[in-house]
Amino acid sequence: MMFQSDNVVGASAKVLDAIVKANDGAAGSYGADPWSIRTADALMRFFDCPLDVYLVTTGTAANALAASAICPPWGTLLTHRESHVIDDECGAPEFFMGGSKLVGLPGIGGKITPDILDAHVANEPGGVRRPPLKGLSIAQGTEFGLVYTTDELKTLSDRARGHGLKMHMDGARFSNALVTLGCSPAEMTWKSGIDVLSLGGTKNGCLMAEAVIFFDLALAEDFRFRRKRSGQTLSKQRLIGAQFEALLDGDHWRELASHSNAMARQLASGLSAVPGLRLGWACEINEVFPIMPQALMDHLHARGAKFLDWSDLSLAPDHALSGDEVVARLVTSFRTTAQEVEEFVALARDFMANTRRAAE
Amino acid sequence: MMFQSDNVVGASAKVLDAIVKANDGAAGSYGADPWSIRTADALMRFFDCPLDVYLVTTGTAANALAASAICPPWGTLLTHRESHVIDDECGAPEFFMGGSKLVGLPGIGGKITPDILDAHVANEPGGVRRPPLKGLSIAQGTEFGLVYTTDELKTLSDRARGHGLKMHMDGARFSNALVTLGCSPAEMTWKSGIDVLSLGGTKNGCLMAEAVIFFDLALAEDFRFRRKRSGQTLSKQRLIGAQFEALLDGDHWRELASHSNAMARQLASGLSAVPGLRLGWACEINEVFPIMPQALMDHLHARGAKFLDWSDLSLAPDHALSGDEVVARLVTSFRTTAQEVEEFVALARDFMANTRRAAE
Amino acid sequence: MMFQSDNVVGASAKVLDAIVKANDGAAGSYGADPWSIRTADALMRFFDCPLDVYLVTTGTAANALAASAICPPWGTLLTHRESHVIDDECGAPEFFMGGSKLVGLPGIGGKITPDILDAHVANEPGGVRRPPLKGLSIAQGTEFGLVYTTDELKTLSDRARGHGLKMHMDGARFSNALVTLGCSPAEMTWKSGIDVLSLGGTKNGCLMAEAVIFFDLALAEDFRFRRKRSGQTLSKQRLIGAQFEALLDGDHWRELASHSNAMARQLASGLSAVPGLRLGWACEINEVFPIMPQALMDHLHARGAKFLDWSDLSLAPDHALSGDEVVARLVTSFRTTAQEVEEFVALARDFMANTRRAAE
Amino acid sequence: MMFQSDNVVGASAKVLDAIVKANDGAAGSYGADPWSIRTADALMRFFDCPLDVYLVTTGTAANALAASAICPPWGTLLTHRESHVIDDECGAPEFFMGGSKLVGLPGIGGKITPDILDAHVANEPGGVRRPPLKGLSIAQGTEFGLVYTTDELKTLSDRARGHGLKMHMDGARFSNALVTLGCSPAEMTWKSGIDVLSLGGTKNGCLMAEAVIFFDLALAEDFRFRRKRSGQTLSKQRLIGAQFEALLDGDHWRELASHSNAMARQLASGLSAVPGLRLGWACEINEVFPIMPQALMDHLHARGAKFLDWSDLSLAPDHALSGDEVVARLVTSFRTTAQEVEEFVALARDFMANTRRAAE
Repeated sequence: MMFQSDNVVGASAKVLDAIVKANDGAAGSYGADPWSIRTADALMRFFDCPLDVYLVTTGTAANALAASAICPPWGTLLTHRESHVIDDECGAPEFFMGGSKLVGLPGIGGKITPDILDAHVANEPGGVRRPPLKGLSIAQGTEFGLVYTTDELKTLSDRARGHGLKMHMDGARFSNALVTLGCSPAEMTWKSGIDVLSLGGTKNGCLMAEAVIFFDLALAEDFRFRRKRSGQTLSKQRLIGAQFEALLDGDHWRELASHSNAMARQLASGLSAVPGLRLGWACEINEVFPIMPQALMDHLHARGAKFLDWSDLSLAPDHALSGDEVVARLVTSFRTTAQEVEEFVALARDFMANTRRAAE
Repeated sequence: MMFQSDNVVGASAKVLDAIVKANDGAAGSYGADPWSIRTADALMRFFDCPLDVYLVTTGTAANALAASAICPPWGTLLTHRESHVIDDECGAPEFFMGGSKLVGLPGIGGKITPDILDAHVANEPGGVRRPPLKGLSIAQGTEFGLVYTTDELKTLSDRARGHGLKMHMDGARFSNALVTLGCSPAEMTWKSGIDVLSLGGTKNGCLMAEAVIFFDLALAEDFRFRRKRSGQTLSKQRLIGAQFEALLDGDHWRELASHSNAMARQLASGLSAVPGLRLGWACEINEVFPIMPQALMDHLHARGAKFLDWSDLSLAPDHALSGDEVVARLVTSFRTTAQEVEEFVALARDFMANTRRAAE
Repeated sequence: MMFQSDNVVGASAKVLDAIVKANDGAAGSYGADPWSIRTADALMRFFDCPLDVYLVTTGTAANALAASAICPPWGTLLTHRESHVIDDECGAPEFFMGGSKLVGLPGIGGKITPDILDAHVANEPGGVRRPPLKGLSIAQGTEFGLVYTTDELKTLSDRARGHGLKMHMDGARFSNALVTLGCSPAEMTWKSGIDVLSLGGTKNGCLMAEAVIFFDLALAEDFRFRRKRSGQTLSKQRLIGAQFEALLDGDHWRELASHSNAMARQLASGLSAVPGLRLGWACEINEVFPIMPQALMDHLHARGAKFLDWSDLSLAPDHALSGDEVVARLVTSFRTTAQEVEEFVALARDFMANTRRAAE
Repeated sequence: MMFQSDNVVGASAKVLDAIVKANDGAAGSYGADPWSIRTADALMRFFDCPLDVYLVTTGTAANALAASAICPPWGTLLTHRESHVIDDECGAPEFFMGGSKLVGLPGIGGKITPDILDAHVANEPGGVRRPPLKGLSIAQGTEFGLVYTTDELKTLSDRARGHGLKMHMDGARFSNALVTLGCSPAEMTWKSGIDVLSLGGTKNGCLMAEAVIFFDLALAEDFRFRRKRSGQTLSKQRLIGAQFEALLDGDHWRELASHSNAMARQLASGLSAVPGLRLGWACEINEVFPIMPQALMDHLHARGAKFLDWSDLSLAPDHALSGDEVVARLVTSFRTTAQEVEEFVALARDFMANTRRAAE
């Protein structure tokens, strides 16, 4: 019952096999290898457009590098006030951007609405008191497991563009969101106004594979220097290239993300059915956020279930916590089994039933 | 005949096998996995001392992070004027240090002597015109394939300490240098005054495994934040941990480095024996730097041999190039074969013989 | 009726005269002049303790440099969420700190209470997700014209120290706050736990005179290099030294600040007496924040009065705006006259009376 | 006999008077004052072109800000290897640029020739090993008192432009160089390919007045934010505006610079006539660099003359030091008197004569 993150497991068998196969023989270094080159081609087919792709080693690096490409050191980058980039990357975006301001906006479930964006822009004081607004970084899905529809993306990015902002999408769980929407990769990105994407492979089923993908090619100018300068240019880059190639081949990414999403849905419906439990936000990707009494959380931890407690600041007002309630975050992966899910749900169900009986 | 670098090959079979084995099962992320933990223990045994170890993904990141630990943004870091950190990392040290000055000193074959260091210090103007000297970064082996003896290391680091400088060692080819000296890892590092080491696994036989190792534990304060902030904290860090564990197990590192060193020696003696050729610097690790006529370099490239031309600025005065001579760099790896070496030497020998005959 | 800031006027006659007198003769550059040296001595007497003083040219530079002395690039600096350093300096603190995180806390009237600080610290997630907390920057007086009592300062800095934080005080209006408290400079600073102070002379009556003052001398290590590196080391520093010397001589600072405070009090009591007007926050220094109908603000601007509208986010809940109310900020200076104040109050009084009559 | 710098004196009477006059009355802050606005107009007439001007407080800040406008954090800025920006500003350019590489080129007397520039560009290795070349910063006059002719400037900037480099001119002693060339300000700047200029007023006769002037207006985009963010936006900017206005009015700058240049020429011819002395570089502005025996330097210092010793690395080969010779730097200012000069020359003449007699 390890639900603390989708990064506690290794790679899928197919991805691992690709690493093993790519180990043979000599090849050009720093990206001049066949796997990296084929991956770039595969990504162009995947997104159905010309693009510039830069393979990197962590999601933090992908986000921070992408942020630095849309916001200069003297600018402001907007994001959700509880986004991963502002709250969980130890200041990497600020470092890579060179000291820019990263400013958080409110929004239920981690989603920024066009009205929230407009309100922030309208409140800017003018003059030189604040670094000028340069970009907006959103997550698909969000830190609370929600997914922007393509309509929402289009409206938001139109509005952002109107304010002179470039759009970054943190796609650490891109595949999970894509499976949910069922649209094309193009529709979820450049056709919806995304300029640069952090494409995550690690949580999807790789050991380590992340990419910065530019749809606005002008933003990629000099980016190869910026990647090298940040220590993200692998000498034996075949290691990443091979993983992405395996992920894209035969829609392997979809197979993996569909499974983890399905496991999350099973977990969500199981927990929702337990009297006394409810979900903080809808289950839209491979994450479930049950609201539970502290006593249940303690009980589950005591029984060895692994998961995190989570912030309640982005709950909808009508979902506010009451009494001793807390929010939990459960994440499923491509390796999560229905049995693990059922075991967890049963633990919760039994505890809540016993508690009710004791109270009667 | 791919002698352009020791990073054109994949991992050794043993290292690859360790990756495959480490792929199974769930484990803590961000370094809380058994492989990373065992690697830290193994490194303490290897270096025979307490230390702090931080696994990272590239040698550039290791060097830049280590540099930032010994030199603040308002300081100066000294290094050789043709070192890898000053010349080949696209400004990563300056970026990670936060805008510090990286200043290059002269020295034959990439080695900095105590006298060169003293002369630089003596010439500092005082006042606030220059950022104060904070550290010295040396490479073992150097960009020209030379190795500092432990006596040389001790004298240099004593002198550096006397000037208030901390010592960093770039150990991208640490194993090759260690095999050459035949001393203990402790003797080549902390017992010789090294405060922080970039330990390279990638060129030694891994796919991607680098580490920043602190012997001066005070320098490691807050370093876990600094690593995270630079996008170098892998979620599935088992990938690096497993490789280092395999490298250290049963002295696998030594086996690999001994082979590449031996291949370089064979190459060096073969080329030295060719009339008209000579070596720019002694062959002390897995690199050979023949001085040859431009025509031979062109011929070898035309015949498919892969290698780089190299700078002559750090040649000893009595080795200066004459006429149309150029310097080449050949690097051997754990996979280089005696046959490849012999093939290369034969190509050079035949061309030079034909040239002589034609001239007669 | 120029109440938009206390920086719209020049220097006091005494300060200007000091500049003129200091212009004669040759003197050492970069601070090695008699005026700078005497100023350092005068400040030690003023604060009654050993200290390190660095003269600089702007309050923004003073704050940003001081911030960088207590928070490393990989740290977090706490401040009020509407403080000058976070909201009005265009990212200078982030730039000078080298990309640190500047995080805003709530607090009525710009004051941070010990409980607010504790609550923030308690909510930190641990691990390496956030840059570690390193310092707390407060303003005396605040952006809303309030003054911490020495008891409040002591309690807050004790609490901060308990959390491992260093304390910075933004003293752009230090003299005004000091006049209000009537305590000694020592009591308002180092005796209350302040480690580093930005001492403002410009708003007090200079043309340009700011200083970074270290009470914790260890923090000043290498600071002369940091000041030079940020372009803040004047070659003819006598220009600043002479101004501070004049300000400190014969308690000239007190005379100037007492006047501007008195003018603000007159403005506050005049406006408070107008039916329909009230103050957002108590008038404690040389700033007044009347809450007024938008129509009055428009009227005053139309009649040529100069002042700014201000944020209502830090009002006490029971002072919340209603209907069409807005907050204004009026600042008085050493040159503000009682007549200007009365003229402004009369304008407001008449408009409000007419409005009432029209409504009847 | 204070020849250590042209910044050891205050302001000219006219400039001081302008400060006094500008002190009266209320005016807009942060540059919205009449003096700043008139200065911008006056500079457009002076340079005979549209331009963007940003007043700042130090030459270091002007240079560092200008550098940051032509070289991004991931770029390389070229300059002379003994220029002020690389050697005397404590890393300010690197800080303001955000960690860029500042690389020094050789050149006699601090002047970079087109051939030296071409040779450096030709030696760049390609790939991503080095941050790409973005700009060239030259000084007019140089650290060794030399002046580029307009032909030299044009040829060099043409060559630079061909390599994709933007051109910065450090004009700390711009007026002195302009008087020497006798050309128009336009000819010495934008008509000769200069994109951005640091215009120095302080050494010319102000107390503190420096400006960053953009001829390439596109480079000034967002610059007002960058200036503010670096703590260089004075609230009472009239202080700088008034000084520059006085300097430009009635060609006051020329009067001041002509005097200091004349004093330097007198010093140069006096010293050149002393047997045993010679000049390191031609006297072209207000600096003189006599080569003298160490014993004479000691004698002059003992007799109270103030001046610095200077580097010999940029001497022409046929001017190399011999024996116990050293280089001195003497700087004259608008206040230097012919009597001071003669006194210094006499001291040198007598010492050398006595030395010769003693040797006979």
